[in-house]
Amino acid sequence: MMKRNALVAQSGGPSPVINASLQGVIEACFSYPDQIGNVYAGWHGIEGVLLEELIDMGKQPMEELKRLRRTPAAGAVGTCRYKLGSHQTADFDRIIEVMKAHDIGYFFYIGGNDSMDTAGKVSKLAREKGLELVVAGVPKTIDNDLGDDRFTIIDHTPGYGSAARYWAHLIQNVNEENRGMSGSEPVSVLQAMGRKSGYITAAARLADPQREMPLQLYMAESGHNLESLAENVNSELQRSGRCIVVVNEGFDVGSLGEARDAFGHVEYGASRTTAAQVVVNYLNDKGIKARGQVTGQLPGVIQRSTSIHASPVDLEEAYEVGKKAVQIALEEGSGWMATILRASGTDYKVLYDKVKLEIVANSARYLPKEWLAPGGIDVTDDFIEYARPLIQGGWPEIELEGGLQRFARLNVKLIDKKLPAYLPQNF
Amino acid sequence: MMKRNALVAQSGGPSPVINASLQGVIEACFSYPDQIGNVYAGWHGIEGVLLEELIDMGKQPMEELKRLRRTPAAGAVGTCRYKLGSHQTADFDRIIEVMKAHDIGYFFYIGGNDSMDTAGKVSKLAREKGLELVVAGVPKTIDNDLGDDRFTIIDHTPGYGSAARYWAHLIQNVNEENRGMSGSEPVSVLQAMGRKSGYITAAARLADPQREMPLQLYMAESGHNLESLAENVNSELQRSGRCIVVVNEGFDVGSLGEARDAFGHVEYGASRTTAAQVVVNYLNDKGIKARGQVTGQLPGVIQRSTSIHASPVDLEEAYEVGKKAVQIALEEGSGWMATILRASGTDYKVLYDKVKLEIVANSARYLPKEWLAPGGIDVTDDFIEYARPLIQGGWPEIELEGGLQRFARLNVKLIDKKLPAYLPQNF
Repeated sequence: MMKRNALVAQSGGPSPVINASLQGVIEACFSYPDQIGNVYAGWHGIEGVLLEELIDMGKQPMEELKRLRRTPAAGAVGTCRYKLGSHQTADFDRIIEVMKAHDIGYFFYIGGNDSMDTAGKVSKLAREKGLELVVAGVPKTIDNDLGDDRFTIIDHTPGYGSAARYWAHLIQNVNEENRGMSGSEPVSVLQAMGRKSGYITAAARLADPQREMPLQLYMAESGHNLESLAENVNSELQRSGRCIVVVNEGFDVGSLGEARDAFGHVEYGASRTTAAQVVVNYLNDKGIKARGQVTGQLPGVIQRSTSIHASPVDLEEAYEVGKKAVQIALEEGSGWMATILRASGTDYKVLYDKVKLEIVANSARYLPKEWLAPGGIDVTDDFIEYARPLIQGGWPEIELEGGLQRFARLNVKLIDKKLPAYLPQNF
Repeated sequence: MMKRNALVAQSGGPSPVINASLQGVIEACFSYPDQIGNVYAGWHGIEGVLLEELIDMGKQPMEELKRLRRTPAAGAVGTCRYKLGSHQTADFDRIIEVMKAHDIGYFFYIGGNDSMDTAGKVSKLAREKGLELVVAGVPKTIDNDLGDDRFTIIDHTPGYGSAARYWAHLIQNVNEENRGMSGSEPVSVLQAMGRKSGYITAAARLADPQREMPLQLYMAESGHNLESLAENVNSELQRSGRCIVVVNEGFDVGSLGEARDAFGHVEYGASRTTAAQVVVNYLNDKGIKARGQVTGQLPGVIQRSTSIHASPVDLEEAYEVGKKAVQIALEEGSGWMATILRASGTDYKVLYDKVKLEIVANSARYLPKEWLAPGGIDVTDDFIEYARPLIQGGWPEIELEGGLQRFARLNVKLIDKKLPAYLPQNF
């Protein structure tokens, strides 16, 4: 087999461990010097591929590449939300052209379900155009919404364990805060990511598996509305004098969410206000104010770009699944995504496996209904059993220099272009 | 001198190191067994004193007391925002009564300027009533707004170094996020605490002393408004394609802040909307939307209740200043607050000293005008030189058990009451 170059690109929102997968892919590529030549990264994902903006990872200092694993989010080589629909044939043609121009024989795409759809299409198109291109997917999403059955496709996605651990630690801290300040700030409202899926909101429960905290979880799937939420909070205030409320960003705030728009526009969601803010205002209006101020916390992108709360289990798996994708590409050929399956048995252990890109493409998975506890504001012990192994381990070794975090500093020098400029269809 | 009991209470918003001061006070009291008998803590600060709700710290397991130093916020013994005005003579009388009933000879009050005012009044009143009571203050506030001259009263307050380090680390993480996602989410807006004082907002600069990030700081003192903020952000987007905006919660959002209230009420501030949300909406309206989504992050109470971002320098100083207060109480008598002064010289070194409670009472301090950089969206190197030593050191040793943080678990068993029930005047 001829020696060919490899290209790796990231896609969609970042995670605390996306760079660990990147490092896994890069190091695994370096370990096959007979089959893989240069290893390029697309600067800002598929946008970098379309614009022929590629970085030679072989030219990076090895110690900086090693730091990728402890560098959160996607600042190292960038990611993007560029949409690639089937109709964008010019874009797909351009991708193939860039692959040809730089003799790319292996394309590794780190992303969620949309990205796996794109990867599958690139793989198919390359075959049709007679280009020998092996495409492999690396799963990534803090939402844990990849696949449609957790046991046969993937047990959990890299990134979820770290988002879960962030929320577990956050709720532990907020519990100390809320308990200490219950006299004047008895209700703390926090908004969690994962609009369609309750997995991240559910992870707040991991802070308190024994259920000792006055913690209420409002997953998108909860079936609650503002009114029943306020009732629940008031009950808890009567019981313990304080309450911690975690709302999914997609929690149904109904018409009150719209009413917040001062211009009269119906504009639901995070753009003009947030679910958390609507809940804070509603609770204050409903008289919680008499007991003290309701505080609102919006970790926003922080929950997907945190470093020190990253789960060591997640960091390790993200790295390994990146390496696995390279192994699959070399041994099995094009069209697979590497997956993580849980071995049966009492001790937590994973196996790395593979699944066809078209199976995972555009799939979606939600928190199983049976994991929602009766009452709709908690999860069951089955969820805890599922998620708890993902947040184990000590603190990740984030290097410090003068009290600041020392992240990977890559040299973002683009390689020489070989093609005429191209304007991506969605620009 | 007769052996007397000690009472310690916390006041106001918590900090990541307030419990370190608590531990310092308790351990120092234990180290004077000939002068100090039992050591009580007021459950939820002065409210606990008024309600005669006291916890015997001598009955706590020593290993849990040792964990206080690594336990953030004020959940261990609670704090409160109870206001004590000079006119509330019944409350002051009650405090003296409780002190007498439990033979309190030493009262340690951990708090900010209001608390030092209260401590001073209690000290004076006790003297007038012929009660031998030594009152000592322990400084605490993440806002760093205690005192009115940083060199003669206090160099910085315990809590500020940890809030500063939280913001330095947060901006480092958000920079990785914003750099990676600049194609679709080019502007990240974060809201910092410290309504009247820009010290916390300013600390975001510590993430990037070399000024390599596209970071703009809008302190309360900045002199900017929404319009000039949008201009600054647009300039930065033209320059680097991305921007990180930190707004003080007290940033002047003008009438647009009020307009967010759907009921037509003029209700400025954090209750119905937040400075960050107003900025997000304003930027979107001003056309940033065309370049992608503006994201808003509101760390809220998280920034004062975080554990792992606590500064080891701050943890140590908070502990030592607590111990110092006990030493002052025993050696100098009533009416002092322990302070932290910076020794002259190139290496950072502090001295612990004392100041009269009435001097620090109701004082306020702001970010010095000369530390605001020209343009109003940055601080000068003098600020960096001042604040940088406060965030040094490795990660604090926060114990983990099964991936969760192991905080102090005190036994909140109140001691037997000796007085009839009392209803505090502000309840």
